[in-house]
Amino acid sequence: MQVNDVVAYIQAGRDRFVADLKEWLTIPSISGDPGRAADVRRSADWLADHLRAQGFPTVEIWETSGHPAVYAEWPAEDPDAPTVVVYGHHDVQPVEPLDEWDTDPFHPVEQGDRLIGRGTSDDKGQILFHTLGLRAGLAASGRQAPPVTIKLLVEGEEESGSAHFAELLRARRERLACDAVVISDTTMWSADVPSMCTGMRGLTEAEVTLRGPSRDLHSGSFGGAVPNPLHAMADLLAALHDADGRVTVPGFYDDVVPLTDEERELFARLPFDEDEWLRTAGDSRAAHGERGYTTLERIWARPTAEVNGMWGGHTGPGGKTIVPAEAHAKISFRLVAAQDPSKIQMAFESWVAEHVPAGVEAEVRVPGGGVRPCFSPIDSAGVRAARRAMERAFGTEVLFTREGGSGPEADLADILEAPLIFVAVGLDGDRIHAPNEHVEIPRLLKGAEAAAYLWEELATALR
Amino acid sequence: MQVNDVVAYIQAGRDRFVADLKEWLTIPSISGDPGRAADVRRSADWLADHLRAQGFPTVEIWETSGHPAVYAEWPAEDPDAPTVVVYGHHDVQPVEPLDEWDTDPFHPVEQGDRLIGRGTSDDKGQILFHTLGLRAGLAASGRQAPPVTIKLLVEGEEESGSAHFAELLRARRERLACDAVVISDTTMWSADVPSMCTGMRGLTEAEVTLRGPSRDLHSGSFGGAVPNPLHAMADLLAALHDADGRVTVPGFYDDVVPLTDEERELFARLPFDEDEWLRTAGDSRAAHGERGYTTLERIWARPTAEVNGMWGGHTGPGGKTIVPAEAHAKISFRLVAAQDPSKIQMAFESWVAEHVPAGVEAEVRVPGGGVRPCFSPIDSAGVRAARRAMERAFGTEVLFTREGGSGPEADLADILEAPLIFVAVGLDGDRIHAPNEHVEIPRLLKGAEAAAYLWEELATALR
Repeated sequence: MQVNDVVAYIQAGRDRFVADLKEWLTIPSISGDPGRAADVRRSADWLADHLRAQGFPTVEIWETSGHPAVYAEWPAEDPDAPTVVVYGHHDVQPVEPLDEWDTDPFHPVEQGDRLIGRGTSDDKGQILFHTLGLRAGLAASGRQAPPVTIKLLVEGEEESGSAHFAELLRARRERLACDAVVISDTTMWSADVPSMCTGMRGLTEAEVTLRGPSRDLHSGSFGGAVPNPLHAMADLLAALHDADGRVTVPGFYDDVVPLTDEERELFARLPFDEDEWLRTAGDSRAAHGERGYTTLERIWARPTAEVNGMWGGHTGPGGKTIVPAEAHAKISFRLVAAQDPSKIQMAFESWVAEHVPAGVEAEVRVPGGGVRPCFSPIDSAGVRAARRAMERAFGTEVLFTREGGSGPEADLADILEAPLIFVAVGLDGDRIHAPNEHVEIPRLLKGAEAAAYLWEELATALR
Repeated sequence: MQVNDVVAYIQAGRDRFVADLKEWLTIPSISGDPGRAADVRRSADWLADHLRAQGFPTVEIWETSGHPAVYAEWPAEDPDAPTVVVYGHHDVQPVEPLDEWDTDPFHPVEQGDRLIGRGTSDDKGQILFHTLGLRAGLAASGRQAPPVTIKLLVEGEEESGSAHFAELLRARRERLACDAVVISDTTMWSADVPSMCTGMRGLTEAEVTLRGPSRDLHSGSFGGAVPNPLHAMADLLAALHDADGRVTVPGFYDDVVPLTDEERELFARLPFDEDEWLRTAGDSRAAHGERGYTTLERIWARPTAEVNGMWGGHTGPGGKTIVPAEAHAKISFRLVAAQDPSKIQMAFESWVAEHVPAGVEAEVRVPGGGVRPCFSPIDSAGVRAARRAMERAFGTEVLFTREGGSGPEADLADILEAPLIFVAVGLDGDRIHAPNEHVEIPRLLKGAEAAAYLWEELATALR
């Protein structure tokens, strides 16, 4: 396969690709809006028809208790070839506030190389580059089937919390058996600095209630002689971090896979401007966190404990001199591989019980099981192969990033028991989830090119 | 003067005293209810008439910007005799919830020795015992005038915050010139354990706001790398006390007049039941406070810093994984003699400024000037004289208490530049400020008896 053949195929297919994408983008598949359920289904049907037209031998609509997913399979010619699941989603975010859009979010508009509309980057544009890339690869190689078996799984509820996704994965576990999962729903560092995500942080939450007297007491009559739950809460939360910014809950770091020197070195090569970052961080006045780590390492690769809310006593106008009956706090932990949310929850509950003073009663409520972190080591065969494909497409070194947030990707790794490989061309500047979402068409075409090389690289690497 | 003469006079005057008090109690002088302004004035007029009938040569209604006070003066025969201001108030608390009263709050009812109604104990009953006591003293001694010059000042706004009281004291400072101020608006330990209050704590308040990012940030994208104002607030408030429960603000204890061994010893003789006290303290599970002090010492004679309210970030249902923009806390300090509210405020502001981490901005708002503490040393001539008068009336040793709360009494001491002497017979069990307020008539008569001896004792002691 010649690069030029792939590139020439993709360039020749550009207009058709853009036309197809624009057609799909006109369907307002907002999964969070119950009134748009029929549109989410139309979006699934459109994709299924498109995949059939592109040559996928098997295309199915997979029903869930919520919105439908689309499944398509294209077996490799070689029955011993590896199998790869490709994950994306066909639902989109709501479009409010509508008056901040310069164009109709569901009538995509081209402005030069830019395509503007809801879903252009997140995630319809990134799903569609796969079909273009796959066909380019087949055309250039003269094959009738890809070098790996491709199982495309495009869910319809990602933007509303993937409520039925784990259930679907468990139910379809046999059909989805694979050697790796390619995720096309993340971002690169920038248009000039292509990169691959290698992990997302997990999450677990807790709500702590501390109880002292059975009612608010007059601080003149009782102040200074009974435990004040707000004092106990301040002491508790202050004790949650040590002077180095490390979480003090025993065992908290036990399962953390440490950053390798190579990953730290590659992170350090990203052109990170801390002043600019502080501006995006709500004009924060200083970076602050775990000692010994850079800002990028802190948000991507280190676990945290963060107090998200705290309240108790008199919070209205004016003064009220009381010893309050209760104090409350909401706390969340961002986790990294290989921390286990339920293990962290239990460790935190024990720690709270041990740190509450005499006369104060503590309750810890955990709202759910949490989200597991996910992580792909940069020296794994799959990541190295995908990086080669990306570098061939972009013609430059591909660096690595991670994401500080949490998503359903960990379920894919856990339930399908397969490593994740993040191949995506979105940017933080694409205004995903915001008015005027957009993408540059040449960037999607680079994605198609990377996808064209990806299967060939993975066929060798995963064998 | 024979005790028996005083006692016989008081017993003979009992019915007239109760009848007069009941008449006054029917006037609903609720100063906090704007609709009762005419009743507060009627109450002042009633008292003025009563004082004239009791023989006070000078009786005046003193207008304020709010409700009127009553002033009455009875000069001593000896022009060199000391002068004593007697303080009380003729307004009463609201009566809600009305359906929890067993009787009409403004139709006082006798049940055996008990008199039930709003104002029976706080404070009409305690003002009226003074006129009975004064006349008993005169009758028993055969004098036409008291042994000290008595200046009775009965305000009409105590239950609504004494808003214009300091103003009144300043305006009438010359007329109110005195050697001591007797306060008849506090309580004794119990009916069996007569006692005198020797001080009330002062108060100053502050509201702290800590600001981090200009808006709430997503904790996935930024958590662990920017300062979290809630963490800073927890650190700040946790640092406000040391491991011994002492306030860490530099200079906080500098002006505290320490408890004397004698006062501690006398406090320790009060029959204090900590388990019972914990029940009244909202079923608090343990006593807790400054190391080295008993519970009574902590609430009466030691200064405190108490967090009354704290809030920030997400406080509603469910989770919201944010780094919040702001954190808030309301803090009050109970002060003891001779701490100065404005000095403590300034020390706290400096302390906050020094304890806020980089990247967090602090603002401290102080809602007002605060309330100064007041204190009467138990070995002062006035307190010793009043104690002798109380012991003669009750026929037993009189112990000492203090009050943990704060009131306008400190203004009397400050503006009139005179020591305070607390002579009162109220009890915590009198349900003042609550439904079914009551008093035992024999206890008021003991108050009258103490008042009868008081002037004679003070005439010698203050000369």
